[in-house]
Amino acid sequence: MTVTPALLPIDKATLPLFAGIDVGGTNIKIGLVDDTGQPVAFNKISTQQEDGAEKAAERVAETLGDMLAKLGLEPNTVARAGLATPGPMNLATGQLLKPGNLPGWHFAMVRDLFSKATGLPVTFANDANAAAFGEFWSGAGAEVQNMVLVTLGTGVGGGIIIDGRLLVGAHGAGGEVGHIVIDCRDDAPPNSLKLRGTLEGYCGAYGVEARARAALETTGAKSSLSELDDESLTPLAIAKAAEAGDHLAMSIVMETAKLLAIGLASIIHTVDPESVVIGGAMTFGGEGHPLGERFLDEVRRQTSVRIFESLRSEVHMDFARLGGDAGFIGAAGLAREEHRG
Amino acid sequence: MTVTPALLPIDKATLPLFAGIDVGGTNIKIGLVDDTGQPVAFNKISTQQEDGAEKAAERVAETLGDMLAKLGLEPNTVARAGLATPGPMNLATGQLLKPGNLPGWHFAMVRDLFSKATGLPVTFANDANAAAFGEFWSGAGAEVQNMVLVTLGTGVGGGIIIDGRLLVGAHGAGGEVGHIVIDCRDDAPPNSLKLRGTLEGYCGAYGVEARARAALETTGAKSSLSELDDESLTPLAIAKAAEAGDHLAMSIVMETAKLLAIGLASIIHTVDPESVVIGGAMTFGGEGHPLGERFLDEVRRQTSVRIFESLRSEVHMDFARLGGDAGFIGAAGLAREEHRG
Repeated sequence: MTVTPALLPIDKATLPLFAGIDVGGTNIKIGLVDDTGQPVAFNKISTQQEDGAEKAAERVAETLGDMLAKLGLEPNTVARAGLATPGPMNLATGQLLKPGNLPGWHFAMVRDLFSKATGLPVTFANDANAAAFGEFWSGAGAEVQNMVLVTLGTGVGGGIIIDGRLLVGAHGAGGEVGHIVIDCRDDAPPNSLKLRGTLEGYCGAYGVEARARAALETTGAKSSLSELDDESLTPLAIAKAAEAGDHLAMSIVMETAKLLAIGLASIIHTVDPESVVIGGAMTFGGEGHPLGERFLDEVRRQTSVRIFESLRSEVHMDFARLGGDAGFIGAAGLAREEHRG
Repeated sequence: MTVTPALLPIDKATLPLFAGIDVGGTNIKIGLVDDTGQPVAFNKISTQQEDGAEKAAERVAETLGDMLAKLGLEPNTVARAGLATPGPMNLATGQLLKPGNLPGWHFAMVRDLFSKATGLPVTFANDANAAAFGEFWSGAGAEVQNMVLVTLGTGVGGGIIIDGRLLVGAHGAGGEVGHIVIDCRDDAPPNSLKLRGTLEGYCGAYGVEARARAALETTGAKSSLSELDDESLTPLAIAKAAEAGDHLAMSIVMETAKLLAIGLASIIHTVDPESVVIGGAMTFGGEGHPLGERFLDEVRRQTSVRIFESLRSEVHMDFARLGGDAGFIGAAGLAREEHRG
C-alpha cells in the first residue's frame, strides 16, 4: 500500500481536516480535505467487497492513520469523516440496502462500522449526491448556490444543491435524475431497474449502445460502426468513429445530447438551478476535446429551446471539474456541513 | 363591495395576522390569516386588470381596511402582506413581467405598488408556488416537510416544499412542473409556450381535449362524445360522459392519470417528496367524487410502477384541500416566513 505525500503544504488556518471516503465496487478512494475544500492527501485501496464492509472499514482506518502519520498530523486534526457509497441505502439508520456492485456489503450498517473503525463521527451519503456536493464546494459549481450535477456513465446519476444545501430528499432519493422519464410510450426502452423511458435508459452507456445498434439496423446509412460486433459497439467506439468523421456515429452523439437536454429541461423547470454540471465517463471526451465540446454545445442548444425564454441566458452548463475526485471531496464537504451544524 | 364577518373568533394568541392577496385575471382574493394558518376573514374583488396594478392595489388596501374595521382590529395587527400573481415575474425586483391574463399589469412594479397602498411590507410570490405553500402550511401537506403540489387546470402548475421551505429556484422558476417533458418525440404536441411534449401539453385542459378529439378520430369506438362539437368537448363534458359509462371518455380520464403519473415519476426522482398533492379544477370531480377518486387511484397505481420500489409505499398522493383559498393562505404564509426571518 502506498501513501501519497501531502498534495499541498498544510496551512493551520485551513484546519480542521475532513476525511472523505468514496466507496465503489472496485476501489475505495480516501482523501483528507481541508476546511476550504482542497484535498491535502489522497489514497486509493481496493474494495475487496467480497470480504464485507467491516474488513474494508478497518483497512480504510489503517490507511487514514498512515496518511496522517506521513503528514505529521495528530488524528484529532480530522474533525469528521464523510462516507459515500452507491445506493440504495437508509440514510437515517446508516444502513446500506442492496447496491448491485457491492453484494458483499448488502444490509451492512456501514455508518457505524466506519465510525467504529476510524474513531470518527461519520456522515453518510449517496455517492452521486456526494459528487454533486464536491463539484458545488470546490469544482464547477463553486461560484453558485443552486446547482445540478448529472453524471453520464453506465448509469445516469446526479445530485442537486438548493441554496447551498444538498437536496437529500425525504427518503434519500433526491437527485436521482437518471430515473426521470423522457418518453411516455409504453414500449420505451427499460433501464437497469426496468423503469421505462428514463433518461438513463436513453443516455446511459447501454442506452447509447442500443440506439447505435437500432440506427445501424434501421437506416441504410454506411457507417464504420457496422463492422463492429455487439461487444465492440461501445460509447468509446462510437465516439472514436464520430471523431473520425462517421456520420451515423456523430448522429448518435448528437441524439444523446438532445435526449439529455430533454431531461435537463424537466430538471430545470423543477428546481431552477443557476448551473447544470455534466460529468461522468460518457461525456465524449469532455472538456477540451473537440467532440466533448461539440456534445456540450448541442446539450446547451437543445436545452435552450425547451426551457422558458427568460431562463435561456441564465442557466449555465459546464463540464464537471473534479473528475473521479468529486465523490471523496464531496463526502468530506458533507461531513464538514454536519460538523458545522 | 361586501365584507365578510370574521370566520372565527380571533384568539390573541394567534396574532399577528398576515394579509394574503391572490391576484387572478378575473378576481383578487384577499384574506387575513392568523399565525397558525387559519383564515379569519376573506373577501374577493374584481381585478379590473385593464385599469392597471396601481388602481387595484388601492382597492385591495381599501378592502383590507374595511375587513380590519369590521373585525374591530387595528391596522398594526397585520404584520406583513403576501402578494401572489401569475408569472413570469422578477421576484428580486418585485416586478411583474408579461403574464398572459394580466395585460394591463405588464411590467408593473407590483411589490412596491402594493406596499405603498397598504402600508405593509410585501412578500412577492408566484401564485402556484403560493398555493403549494398554502397546502403545506394548512392543507393537504400540513403533516409533512417535503411536498409537491401539482395543479391541473387550463395550465398545469405547481410548487415544491423542501424541508419546510418553498423551492423558489434561482430565477423564480422552481416548481414549474407543467413544463417538464414527458414525451421526447419531435412531433409531440406543443403547450401554450410552444414547448413540446410537456406535462401541460398532455394534461392541461387543451391537452385533454386534444387527446379526446384524436381518440374520436382514430378509434372507431362508439362514444357519446362524438355527438359534441369541438367547442363542447371540454374536460367537464368528458368527465360527465365517463361517469355515465362512456368507455372512450373513461379511457381519456385514465390516460390523463397515466400521463400525469409519468410526470410525477420524474418529479419524485428529482426532489423525493413525502407527499404529492393534486389540485386544480381538472381533477375530474376530486375528493369524494367517484370519478375523481378513481382518477387519483389510477395516478397512484401508474406512479407506483414508475418509481423506485423503496419509494412505492412511502410517497403519499392526495387531493389538495384548500381549493381556491390555497393561494391567499399561502401568500400569507410566505409573508409570515419572511416576517419571522
